[in-house]
Amino acid sequence: MRFRNKPWAGEKIRQYPQYVISEPETHKGKWHEVFGNANPLHIEVGTGKGRFITGMAAANPDINYLGVELHMGVLASALDRLIEAELPNVKLLNVNAAELLSYFAKNDISRLYLNFSDPWPKTRHEKRRLTYKSFLDLYEQILIDGGEIHFKTDNQGLFEYSLVSFSEYGMLLKNVSLDLHNSGFEGNIMTEYEEKFSGKGNRIYRCEVQYQS
Amino acid sequence: MRFRNKPWAGEKIRQYPQYVISEPETHKGKWHEVFGNANPLHIEVGTGKGRFITGMAAANPDINYLGVELHMGVLASALDRLIEAELPNVKLLNVNAAELLSYFAKNDISRLYLNFSDPWPKTRHEKRRLTYKSFLDLYEQILIDGGEIHFKTDNQGLFEYSLVSFSEYGMLLKNVSLDLHNSGFEGNIMTEYEEKFSGKGNRIYRCEVQYQS
Repeated sequence: MRFRNKPWAGEKIRQYPQYVISEPETHKGKWHEVFGNANPLHIEVGTGKGRFITGMAAANPDINYLGVELHMGVLASALDRLIEAELPNVKLLNVNAAELLSYFAKNDISRLYLNFSDPWPKTRHEKRRLTYKSFLDLYEQILIDGGEIHFKTDNQGLFEYSLVSFSEYGMLLKNVSLDLHNSGFEGNIMTEYEEKFSGKGNRIYRCEVQYQS
Repeated sequence: MRFRNKPWAGEKIRQYPQYVISEPETHKGKWHEVFGNANPLHIEVGTGKGRFITGMAAANPDINYLGVELHMGVLASALDRLIEAELPNVKLLNVNAAELLSYFAKNDISRLYLNFSDPWPKTRHEKRRLTYKSFLDLYEQILIDGGEIHFKTDNQGLFEYSLVSFSEYGMLLKNVSLDLHNSGFEGNIMTEYEEKFSGKGNRIYRCEVQYQS
């Protein structure tokens, strides 16, 4: 994804604190207060323009959703979508995935989505991949016991790498699809990226993995 | 693979006891005697017409190979190939994979190959798939500790199923390729089936999995 410079994005984000959480560290361990209910919280790390997280929130009103996105310009597009959708169960967070521990405590999150994460194909950038072991360790510290990661990508190399990384971490693999759009999977909500690249004939790979205690 | 009736196959097999092992149960726990050396033994379960096992034996003279094939007519074709190749380190076994425990003891085998196994796509036939948990349990009882299965197939459903089955069994996944012929993998020896179906544009999936103690 290209990140255009949007100097107005920061100002706009500050105008909608009901959608983009400010001072997220104050909610650590008590995110249910933010949503005003005790429903499970699912987060998407790298939420981009927010089509997936908004679609999931619309389809699942009994689950709370939080889209985490580092890039303010992209987040501003996601914010536009949230303003339009007027859903009570989805919010955004403008933070770096590597710092999730500052904002979430163990058991805060029931499920974590990774969609079309940056593949960082060069070996020397392995540690930046969101399925690298240090990220898997980080996610485990904020998820419930037996929590799951649901992962999809069109990047073959990243999917191959991630299957091995999940296995090395001792996670349980479930529901693998090597061609999601031609599988029997129901209820898939496409990201902007997914629609564009599957339309060009790219296969979409998907799996679910569960932490084992 | 189609199995043509070859009434002469049994007679031919009996004529070449140096290639097709007779009374294999007598070698249980002492297969090194059959090969006359202490080299590691690798087996292919479902060896078909023997192109893979013969190619591997030619490329790796310090490893002993045993091709296991239930269907006598197919095995006769593999035998023709062995007679032609005149290699000291490859032999055949005309037995059912489900009965391997009758012929092998723990530590007899260092590595097991599964190539283009029958996918048995119907759910009610799951137990027949050579990556079903009962087979993984059986292989573990005849492999060395930390032994590996090297698996390739062009069947997407079987590969998806097998990744999950390996994970559920607690095996460690290594070296996944979702498009073997367009990967950097070196030294791939194609089976007859692989050459035919990859030529038609089918992707070849491959992975290695290791038993963990």
